[in-house]
Amino acid sequence: MIDLDNEVNDIVNRILSGEVLAAARLMRDLDDGVPRAREILKRLYPHSGRAHIIGITGSPGVGKSTLTDRLIQHLRSRGFTVGVVAVDPTSPFSGGAILGDRIRMQRHALDEGVFIRSLATRGHFGGLTASARAVITVLDAMGKDYILVETVGVGQDEVEIAATAYTTMVVTVPGMGDDIQAIKAGILEVADLLVINKADRDGASRTYQDLLMMLDLQARRHTHAWKPKIYLTQALENQGIEELMAGVGEHQEFLAQEDGKALLAAWSSRIRQEFLELLKEGMHRHLVGQLSRSGRLDRILQDILAKRTDPYSASEALVMETLGPF
Amino acid sequence: MIDLDNEVNDIVNRILSGEVLAAARLMRDLDDGVPRAREILKRLYPHSGRAHIIGITGSPGVGKSTLTDRLIQHLRSRGFTVGVVAVDPTSPFSGGAILGDRIRMQRHALDEGVFIRSLATRGHFGGLTASARAVITVLDAMGKDYILVETVGVGQDEVEIAATAYTTMVVTVPGMGDDIQAIKAGILEVADLLVINKADRDGASRTYQDLLMMLDLQARRHTHAWKPKIYLTQALENQGIEELMAGVGEHQEFLAQEDGKALLAAWSSRIRQEFLELLKEGMHRHLVGQLSRSGRLDRILQDILAKRTDPYSASEALVMETLGPF
Repeated sequence: MIDLDNEVNDIVNRILSGEVLAAARLMRDLDDGVPRAREILKRLYPHSGRAHIIGITGSPGVGKSTLTDRLIQHLRSRGFTVGVVAVDPTSPFSGGAILGDRIRMQRHALDEGVFIRSLATRGHFGGLTASARAVITVLDAMGKDYILVETVGVGQDEVEIAATAYTTMVVTVPGMGDDIQAIKAGILEVADLLVINKADRDGASRTYQDLLMMLDLQARRHTHAWKPKIYLTQALENQGIEELMAGVGEHQEFLAQEDGKALLAAWSSRIRQEFLELLKEGMHRHLVGQLSRSGRLDRILQDILAKRTDPYSASEALVMETLGPF
Repeated sequence: MIDLDNEVNDIVNRILSGEVLAAARLMRDLDDGVPRAREILKRLYPHSGRAHIIGITGSPGVGKSTLTDRLIQHLRSRGFTVGVVAVDPTSPFSGGAILGDRIRMQRHALDEGVFIRSLATRGHFGGLTASARAVITVLDAMGKDYILVETVGVGQDEVEIAATAYTTMVVTVPGMGDDIQAIKAGILEVADLLVINKADRDGASRTYQDLLMMLDLQARRHTHAWKPKIYLTQALENQGIEELMAGVGEHQEFLAQEDGKALLAAWSSRIRQEFLELLKEGMHRHLVGQLSRSGRLDRILQDILAKRTDPYSASEALVMETLGPF
């Protein structure tokens, strides 16, 4: 027990001092559901909360990875250390992952100041969002100055992950179709900055006008203290990155106003979401485990199949039995 | 009480006889969290399980809506009644929705044999998946022969919804980029049929070869009794729809083999997922309600903020307290 504790302490200290191998090992162990990994995460948690987390989200093909690559370059050239979490949507069934043009980022592989982690599957940790949050906590505890969280902003999970960043940029490209338009409307509301990448393409000014109009509509519905701005970039050519990062800086200043009131609110909201999500997943796993072992789950499913009850009534009854009256 | 019961009975009977207005009203009430709506759903449930559910999924812009439109046409011309559930990914924050080219489907608006429902937000019902399932149950109880479930196959939610169909078609187009490739690999595993839409475009045969190779790889990893086939369509020009629907028919025959063994397995799996999801959401809502009212949630969050505990330890302790030892 003392040996195990010493070992955990040792790993915690190595990660806190920024050791890459120890952090990579922990992330793998978290994915594999190694119980000790969770204990280490608990010890790291109080050391998190220092990094500035930037969410980068948008539809497939808008060039998020290239943009992320440029942001890493920019931050590194100013001496900041960077952590990257790239969230890949893949099968809940396979566990496999194909990483597309993320290979481009490999040029940072030999830079000790950059740590990149790709998340492909839900893993054992309880949801893609939970895995992403855990990785962010580790990178934060490692002492990274900035953490870039790149997600495909289409599914709910992905939007939620992006929304947990302190500064969220939503990336689009000129002239996408109606389907994309619908998505854009949805994720627009989590955007602190809007980026039109591949801005040399036809239709950039039209897209700019469209986004301006959408922002205007949004401003009429809500009154936020922060007004999102639109940035034009060509990430492949490294164009517009300075201006975009200046925008990130402005947002950081906004968050720091009045003794960091807005930042504290964002941090509290992150904690609330993280706790509630862990509670939800933890309760479910524990309860389903109990129901499976006792054979009760099978009996309930048989009752529904035989139409003696229905999923709604059966789940309500079980909730009342477990938690008592509302 | 008796009056209310009579009213519920009346609505149930109207929906069972296929009345469109009663069904539309119920779906709206479900979204709005009207308690009676859930009671009606419970009564409808035993009458579901007759429709053949077809999932249609794929990235934005592949023409899913147009394809869905053609499938409706095809099924209607053969005298079948059709329900459609279109799942739109939009903001968890706004509650708003922009429906893109779905307007095309409005030509079926005057056809009593077609019922189309667009789902944009999570609503009050507990998750997009739960809302979609509820709508499917209503359409099924109404007596629709086929239910088409159209989702953007990128997020986990959307893939899960598509996977609950009996026959799932994954739609792609020639020559999509790396990002799409990654997604395709993920959702390939839920595909019973693969569709290359806009097949007149450059690169169709290359995409065909790519998909064939991916199917081949998949067949080596798993041994499924059903081997997915690839169909080439041009939905806008109504090309390839006959062949695709013949493929759906083959899959239906496959499911019906050996006294419907595979269909029963799919139905059981649907019920299991539906029950577990309702249980998870119901438990969470109930528990968070209790914790909020007692002020305990705030105290826990304060403790985490002050770093007296962390979200992992705090959630684990609460799970143990509520459910007892694992």
